[in-house]
Amino acid sequence: MTESQRGFPTEEYRRRLERAQAMLQAAALDALLLTTEPAVRYFTGYLTRFWESPTRPWFLVVPASGDPVAVIPSIGVELMAKTWISDVRSWRSPDLEDDGVSILAATLRELVGKAGRVGLPMGQETHLRMPLADFAALKKAVAPIELCADDDILKRLRLVKSPAEVEKVRQACAIAGRVFARMPALAREGMSLGKVFRTFQIACLEEGADWVPYLAGGAGQGGYGDVISPAGETALASGDILMLDTGLVWDGYFCDFDRNYAIGDPGEQPRAAYARLMEATAAGLEAAKPGATASEVFHAMDRIVTGGKGGSDAGRLGHGLGMQLTEWPSLMAGDHTVIEAGMVLTLEPGIELAPGRIMVHEDNIVVGAEGSTMLSPAAPESLPVIG
Amino acid sequence: MTESQRGFPTEEYRRRLERAQAMLQAAALDALLLTTEPAVRYFTGYLTRFWESPTRPWFLVVPASGDPVAVIPSIGVELMAKTWISDVRSWRSPDLEDDGVSILAATLRELVGKAGRVGLPMGQETHLRMPLADFAALKKAVAPIELCADDDILKRLRLVKSPAEVEKVRQACAIAGRVFARMPALAREGMSLGKVFRTFQIACLEEGADWVPYLAGGAGQGGYGDVISPAGETALASGDILMLDTGLVWDGYFCDFDRNYAIGDPGEQPRAAYARLMEATAAGLEAAKPGATASEVFHAMDRIVTGGKGGSDAGRLGHGLGMQLTEWPSLMAGDHTVIEAGMVLTLEPGIELAPGRIMVHEDNIVVGAEGSTMLSPAAPESLPVIG
Repeated sequence: MTESQRGFPTEEYRRRLERAQAMLQAAALDALLLTTEPAVRYFTGYLTRFWESPTRPWFLVVPASGDPVAVIPSIGVELMAKTWISDVRSWRSPDLEDDGVSILAATLRELVGKAGRVGLPMGQETHLRMPLADFAALKKAVAPIELCADDDILKRLRLVKSPAEVEKVRQACAIAGRVFARMPALAREGMSLGKVFRTFQIACLEEGADWVPYLAGGAGQGGYGDVISPAGETALASGDILMLDTGLVWDGYFCDFDRNYAIGDPGEQPRAAYARLMEATAAGLEAAKPGATASEVFHAMDRIVTGGKGGSDAGRLGHGLGMQLTEWPSLMAGDHTVIEAGMVLTLEPGIELAPGRIMVHEDNIVVGAEGSTMLSPAAPESLPVIG
Repeated sequence: MTESQRGFPTEEYRRRLERAQAMLQAAALDALLLTTEPAVRYFTGYLTRFWESPTRPWFLVVPASGDPVAVIPSIGVELMAKTWISDVRSWRSPDLEDDGVSILAATLRELVGKAGRVGLPMGQETHLRMPLADFAALKKAVAPIELCADDDILKRLRLVKSPAEVEKVRQACAIAGRVFARMPALAREGMSLGKVFRTFQIACLEEGADWVPYLAGGAGQGGYGDVISPAGETALASGDILMLDTGLVWDGYFCDFDRNYAIGDPGEQPRAAYARLMEATAAGLEAAKPGATASEVFHAMDRIVTGGKGGSDAGRLGHGLGMQLTEWPSLMAGDHTVIEAGMVLTLEPGIELAPGRIMVHEDNIVVGAEGSTMLSPAAPESLPVIG
């Protein structure tokens, strides 16, 4: 990939701003106040791993009309100045007396006026990335301006990806796909899962990942116990099913899919489970059409993994994907979000082979006007065996 | 490293709990409510990269007497059961109707009684990792139990590391030290900074890092512009100063230090700046004694980097380090935290060589009863040159 394909043109941010401002006006909100990495980046393009440091708060105000205003620690001004944002206000953070509250309050009063309503993301899968005590002080400082829920504006905006965003996820998927293709050379019987994790992350970087924020997996006889544990030092043994699930990042966008491998001959049950997971994924892909609901996509997969009876034990069988490893919607019975073209989703059906032994498959898709297509490279048709 | 050196014995968690409970009782608080990764891990040992997914909230309640209670999504139960925590309550998350609020409220009522005070971290360098709307619902559900500030208990606990924690940071530092020692073979004139970043991260994994959450750096003629930008595709050129700053993780603990290199002959000014940064670091090491303040350690370094006059432009010249890349205290004029044995700190003096051209050096230290010692391997005495 060449450098020119990184980032987005300013027009992309202008379109995001226009959509946001239409929603703000419809919700009778005067501004959005954003504090988290993906929220700030969505409107600015501000991309840095410095968010790993939780010390300093960062703020972006998106007014109902006019351009966004960044209110950020001075350490970030040089980098923010490289984005399309022209109004950047800063203070020397950390400041134990006033860590940005006054300058943010003044900015809100200037943009909103004496009274008004400023929306913050407050719903599921969101949080406020600033100290609660400072938030209380901010509320007092801006009163009678009200800090209230954002009418899910940020969620509604980010649910649908632009073509340029989809290309970034596709690129991340392609990188991970090249790594998975090398797995027979990267893992073998007798190697510890810890060693496999390390080798896999190295391969992700070799194949073009900018960084590897997420890697999970498991290995166990005929299936694994869970999909979130760190790697242990137990050696891979014949009869193990090995699964690796990566969220690597390219230009700020994640992939999130996994692949399963048998160490030696897996026997009939894991082969059959794998085949059923492939079938469930195909059913999910088919079901993920504009106008369907997240719940319907869930049920399409759930029917297969449960052999027709439904009601699998999984909390959900997939989710949104983009600047975060996981984001709205959830492919589960209770989520009735309507699927739209431009959504990027994971399909993640799982089967319990025995108590405490599961197999999970995951792919990434993008919804188009006529239906969905795969973003992750095609998985092997049958459970691949590492000799 | 062998697997047996990972984790902590249960006695370590019991000691943390005892300290916390003494503080809770002194503050007339009935419990702590914790929601973030390091806070939950501090009391439980629950270690997973799954926190990368921001979808689900996680809760730990530390009562003023009795053992902690984990209230977590069912997807985490198997892994939490491997820790010393025996009381684990769960719900199937995400739940769009009630994502853990009811079960958490019931748990708080059970542990606290009809009325009482539950402390949450609300001060600087903290945030609440749950949706604001759910927090509002929780407050209503537990009333008249009050959700209030935690009297900085979590901060005060984590400011001082146990010997076992220090060893984990030391191990992370040693891994990064081996990588920096390989730098002359990893970077060279003509290579892009992006390529250097990728190669460096690979080397971190090769040398034993579990993962590499943070890497920053810069390169520029006679100095770089900032220390938080992502790597670009500009090729390293003779006369550049290259800096890499890594926060790699071993067993859940960070290192955070950097090293500077000259690409070809740097000339006199960068050599002199480097020498002064070494001198400032030595002064910081000398000043970081029990009983001194963070402010005094700052001034010891600030006097050197400013040639005696003080008042450098840096927001701070170092900070705490542990389960987070950055944590309390801040080595800056306004932070009067008293230095104690067991604190792990970074010393991070910086010099502006010209407008927009800086050089920053960073080391990691641990404070002992008699004074501080280095955790990061010794830096080269003079600015190293990559040919």
